[in-house]
Amino acid sequence: MRAAIYHGERDIRVEDVERPEIEDPSDALVRITHTCVCGSDLWPYRGQSDRDTPSPIGHEPMGIVKEVGEDVTSVEPGDRVYAPFVVSCGECEFCRRGLHTSCVNGDGWGGDNGGAQGEYVRSPHADGTLVRIPDRHADDEDTLRSVLPLTDVLGTGHHAAVSAGVGEGDTCVVVGDGAVGLCGVLAAKRLGASRVVAVGHHADRLDIAEEFGATETVLGGSEGVDDVVGHVTDLTHGGAEHVLECVGAASAMETAAGVARPGGTVGYVGVPHGMGDGLDLFDFFGDNVAIRGGIAPVRAYADELLADVLQGTLDPSPIFDKTVSLENVAEGYRAMDEREAIKVLVEP
Amino acid sequence: MRAAIYHGERDIRVEDVERPEIEDPSDALVRITHTCVCGSDLWPYRGQSDRDTPSPIGHEPMGIVKEVGEDVTSVEPGDRVYAPFVVSCGECEFCRRGLHTSCVNGDGWGGDNGGAQGEYVRSPHADGTLVRIPDRHADDEDTLRSVLPLTDVLGTGHHAAVSAGVGEGDTCVVVGDGAVGLCGVLAAKRLGASRVVAVGHHADRLDIAEEFGATETVLGGSEGVDDVVGHVTDLTHGGAEHVLECVGAASAMETAAGVARPGGTVGYVGVPHGMGDGLDLFDFFGDNVAIRGGIAPVRAYADELLADVLQGTLDPSPIFDKTVSLENVAEGYRAMDEREAIKVLVEP
Repeated sequence: MRAAIYHGERDIRVEDVERPEIEDPSDALVRITHTCVCGSDLWPYRGQSDRDTPSPIGHEPMGIVKEVGEDVTSVEPGDRVYAPFVVSCGECEFCRRGLHTSCVNGDGWGGDNGGAQGEYVRSPHADGTLVRIPDRHADDEDTLRSVLPLTDVLGTGHHAAVSAGVGEGDTCVVVGDGAVGLCGVLAAKRLGASRVVAVGHHADRLDIAEEFGATETVLGGSEGVDDVVGHVTDLTHGGAEHVLECVGAASAMETAAGVARPGGTVGYVGVPHGMGDGLDLFDFFGDNVAIRGGIAPVRAYADELLADVLQGTLDPSPIFDKTVSLENVAEGYRAMDEREAIKVLVEP
Repeated sequence: MRAAIYHGERDIRVEDVERPEIEDPSDALVRITHTCVCGSDLWPYRGQSDRDTPSPIGHEPMGIVKEVGEDVTSVEPGDRVYAPFVVSCGECEFCRRGLHTSCVNGDGWGGDNGGAQGEYVRSPHADGTLVRIPDRHADDEDTLRSVLPLTDVLGTGHHAAVSAGVGEGDTCVVVGDGAVGLCGVLAAKRLGASRVVAVGHHADRLDIAEEFGATETVLGGSEGVDDVVGHVTDLTHGGAEHVLECVGAASAMETAAGVARPGGTVGYVGVPHGMGDGLDLFDFFGDNVAIRGGIAPVRAYADELLADVLQGTLDPSPIFDKTVSLENVAEGYRAMDEREAIKVLVEP
């Protein structure tokens, strides 16, 4: 089969590799029909985090079940499914309490089960990992585009909002206008926030934030306001109780701490990068600003978010502003790396 | 009047200084009868944090009201009172929600209102700051020794436990066997924890932790177990949901992250020191361990904790293992610096 293989910094090649096969009675083999490039794929792409070379890459799989092991009961060949960015058994202490990312039988994509940017993946623990899309929606292309972000960024933005404690009538600030930040805006509105202030560095992405329900947007960066923290603090009359940090960089955490109201909470979901000097806790300590979140257990949120996507009240698909074939996946990486695209959909 | 004055690293002198006077109608003048040396006083003493020189020092005042401004209604001359380590108005948004340390009219001790290690302090916002001790307890020396830690360390240990979310039947780990850690043990038991694992570097202090209700103790450091995190993780079958970080050092935060169960919470109250490289968030991110807490709003906890101390069900006084006169306060600093004493009571 064909699959994207990571060979090092800015070197993604599509190659012939061996197709994964069922190895365990709990496995399912899935033919990928839709997948994407993730902001976190860009860290190894940019040489900013370690990754084995060569190795399959991609962790946002959606496709058709091809074959199942004999213990699999929740899906069968022909079903349209998606999987979160990690494998989870669905039965351990942590899966049962909704923390699938700490599953004691967990695993990632990209090892010998194949990367999601390829023609097939083998899903271990298929009953705990795969989410079945009901047949009546299973072939609707528009619906599938809206479901695909549930593999990662929609669940991750939702986790930021949940971790920040967003609820009915709240004011919150979303730091970051990438795919996760935009999904954080959607999630905050869905949880009932009445004011959502979106902070980013790209005017065009902040337009999508408005489309997604942001009540105010604040453009920072070289073309934006000088003092983002001061500006947002003024807008919120002293800071917001709920702040979603959706970048994963030291500067974004500093902004989040700066715009949080004393006693508030920062929900963070971006993999902490560029924090060579670590995080200065003083910014949080003095005003008792809590830091909650972490790697998002998106499997835990599958049922409730999928229901809303399928009934049409939640649609993150505008984050996909570029589509490439699997053979051209390297072009997708380039476009995201150069910030030409927010998120790239890949069709094997 | 006489007062301790900080002149720089390891240089505390007791000198004649001007007595503070009522300046504002909301002020009260308090003659100090009991105070203490705090672990956080040791940071400037050791030259590890900046402090003006010369400046009055001490922030844990208890005494007798000498005089009140005309707007003060909650105390009158002759009342025995104590004050938390910060001044708070009691009326602003943050005081009303129990976050007195973020009071918009707040202030510390040690400026022109005098340091608590002296004969008098002027308390701004006396109605919001001072806590009155009922007359029937006001002259009982044993009771006063038990109340005095409410100025700081008992409320701070309690804040760690509250921030960590300790409740009935919980298992928790307390990192640190200083005065705050020992008070954290007391607080965790009081909140209903059924297992309290105390982790420290001093066998004699861990004995007090047991006296305070720790069900297990783990001695680390040069004379203790090699792998504290591994040992505590085994004891708790995979980590504790609730961890109290009561030191304020990078190593203690690392231990706290290490012994936290995935999805758990670290309540931290030690002023973050020795974190030149900041905090590595990865330790928390991967398992969604929340970081809550900060500088403790001990004024918020005054009523409930004082009630328990006065009825005799809560007694932190064993932390005082040395008493000095104000004239000999430098000896108190020395003893705490050299870890001869856990906490020093000072009697002007």
